[in-house]
Amino acid sequence: MLTKAIAILGSTGSIGKQTLEVVDQHPQALQVVALAAHSNWQELLEQTKKYKPSLVAMMDSTGAQELAQALYEQAIDVPVMVGEEGLIAVATHEQADTVVTAVSGAIGLRPTVSAIEQGKNIALANKETLVAAGALIMDMVKEKGVSLLPVDSEHSAIFQCIQQQDCEQARLILTASGGPFRDYSLEQLKKVTAEDALRHPNWRMGPKITIDSATLMNKGLEVIEARWLFDVDFDRIDVLIHPQSIIHSMVEFTDRSVIAQLGLPDMRLPIQYALSYPQRWESCWPKLDLTTLTGLTFQQPDYKRFPALELALEAGRADGSMPAVMNGANEVAVHAFLQRKIGFMDIPKIVKETMNRHEWVAKPQLAHIQEADQWAREFAISMVKLTREDSE
Amino acid sequence: MLTKAIAILGSTGSIGKQTLEVVDQHPQALQVVALAAHSNWQELLEQTKKYKPSLVAMMDSTGAQELAQALYEQAIDVPVMVGEEGLIAVATHEQADTVVTAVSGAIGLRPTVSAIEQGKNIALANKETLVAAGALIMDMVKEKGVSLLPVDSEHSAIFQCIQQQDCEQARLILTASGGPFRDYSLEQLKKVTAEDALRHPNWRMGPKITIDSATLMNKGLEVIEARWLFDVDFDRIDVLIHPQSIIHSMVEFTDRSVIAQLGLPDMRLPIQYALSYPQRWESCWPKLDLTTLTGLTFQQPDYKRFPALELALEAGRADGSMPAVMNGANEVAVHAFLQRKIGFMDIPKIVKETMNRHEWVAKPQLAHIQEADQWAREFAISMVKLTREDSE
Repeated sequence: MLTKAIAILGSTGSIGKQTLEVVDQHPQALQVVALAAHSNWQELLEQTKKYKPSLVAMMDSTGAQELAQALYEQAIDVPVMVGEEGLIAVATHEQADTVVTAVSGAIGLRPTVSAIEQGKNIALANKETLVAAGALIMDMVKEKGVSLLPVDSEHSAIFQCIQQQDCEQARLILTASGGPFRDYSLEQLKKVTAEDALRHPNWRMGPKITIDSATLMNKGLEVIEARWLFDVDFDRIDVLIHPQSIIHSMVEFTDRSVIAQLGLPDMRLPIQYALSYPQRWESCWPKLDLTTLTGLTFQQPDYKRFPALELALEAGRADGSMPAVMNGANEVAVHAFLQRKIGFMDIPKIVKETMNRHEWVAKPQLAHIQEADQWAREFAISMVKLTREDSE
Repeated sequence: MLTKAIAILGSTGSIGKQTLEVVDQHPQALQVVALAAHSNWQELLEQTKKYKPSLVAMMDSTGAQELAQALYEQAIDVPVMVGEEGLIAVATHEQADTVVTAVSGAIGLRPTVSAIEQGKNIALANKETLVAAGALIMDMVKEKGVSLLPVDSEHSAIFQCIQQQDCEQARLILTASGGPFRDYSLEQLKKVTAEDALRHPNWRMGPKITIDSATLMNKGLEVIEARWLFDVDFDRIDVLIHPQSIIHSMVEFTDRSVIAQLGLPDMRLPIQYALSYPQRWESCWPKLDLTTLTGLTFQQPDYKRFPALELALEAGRADGSMPAVMNGANEVAVHAFLQRKIGFMDIPKIVKETMNRHEWVAKPQLAHIQEADQWAREFAISMVKLTREDSE
């Protein structure tokens, strides 16, 4: 077996750590050559000792200093880089074949672009890359002849269902757990707190994506991603609420045959498949036993109670700079909600208002996308302030 | 699109008629060149007028005479052949690319062998071919370089899930509706009548297979078929009861990812896929809407109440001449049950006793298989008589 050399962006986050668990299970097949994280320098220190990468980087400069100091004290000779430049250095590390982009948020965009430019294959866990810059990224992937494989469970499911089949006329059916507030009324939703939302997700995930799952924004972002990953129009992508999170997504082919991928909710499987493809590697996580479940159920999403889903689809259909704006505003709003500054239903309100006020660009270049993202964040921050003043 | 020329064995049966419905939907892609049926000459006459085959055949000689007479009177110039020779002539018709083997029972074996010998591709709906002579048939298929694609919904599902993936380490999970008596006690099962069994199947099927579905023998036959079709050992084939018949079967790969095929219970889909593969053709039958279902449930099969399933697996594991004997005895017993001669739970009893008394042959040739089948039928008939005398 040929060893694949990987670089991980976001190695101390949920996906990053699970990627390293997959590495632990397949030490012959995977070698870690570079790691980047946000600010958790203690965790990155431990990872550096264990996996012996040739380069590490931290987004946060204080963290980077702490890490460099600790490595120096322990006589571990690894260069430490900092900021976006550090992330880009990790993403373009000369030894890396494949970059796992597991950072959360729009910060993942530029390092991913650099990695593709350097001919790296991408295992994509960062949603915002395709949401904000799908057209640009897919053009680059084609031009550079690299592979871009999904790590998200839904997109991995669709990728596994399609295999090499023609999906031009197919319909993609993305399943969604519906989140913890699936059956809440609008009145109940208004009173939801960050604590409520962060409790008991079906999946092991970071806080940002857990909130996005509760608003269904996450599913909206995934629809936009799917549109680019599989080159399928929005009118052939459906969302289906499936509370048990066992069927991870489906493809309905032109003959009305539906192929689905099932498994326990465990991100290590799609992470591993993105790294093992076209092979499948043996795994030791628990097996799915359908007889232990009370039943698999399905329902249509309710756009009234979960307006974030519709906003995302609207932004996706508008295309151009709109998805980046929608995504930037959402990041700010979710952050404010996690900090208890705004209510749960204020998240879609702020996203909507930001989208309404945006001056749309049809065919944005990377710089336009970053400008639009920046504008959206600033506008959304002002909206957060207004919302707080209103409620005080 | 290249037109595929097809011959159908069993054109007036359930699968045969649904195959012709698929032809009706794709007249550019499929052309009927030869048709064979058992005894329903009126139906075959209508089919002959509509599809204008170059040859027709009937197993039943009286039916063949009636058909020939009717064709003569209506000035339709098509040769009519009779008996097994007729079936073989249809299966090896020089214009045919693909033979749909939709006859029920061991009668399908010899024409299928002849078709493969003549280099025809096979769309296999006749279960008994692989049950009785799996090793022989698969060797011939390899040697002649023809394709043998499954029409059975379960095997079509598995075939669709695997695509070109490596399934050497995979586990096949065949789903079974569990039949109409899924929740009956042993005492209730003893009193079941043919009328009870033929009522409300999930699928449009003939009477023999409907009874086999109720005893779970059908699933046992399918496990043996799957063993040969996909070259997978018996210990990597599971049966799972799934009353809603929406998931038609699944494959669990070595990384514990499970791929499933779903659809409404409609045989036209797997029939069409066996003819359209590797393409998929647009279809007009109803779409699966998961939100209209109350839920998909799963349970383990109960071998105590449904001993036919275990007998089939035992015969499959014994291999050699045993599956042919098991199958021959089952055909006789089901026939006797349909004629109200024996009880529902007498079916597995007769199969078991016949298997116990069989002198096993390790590597049977076609002639041995047919001898074993013949012996099993005679023995089972004598058992039917004994059972009747006992109950009188």
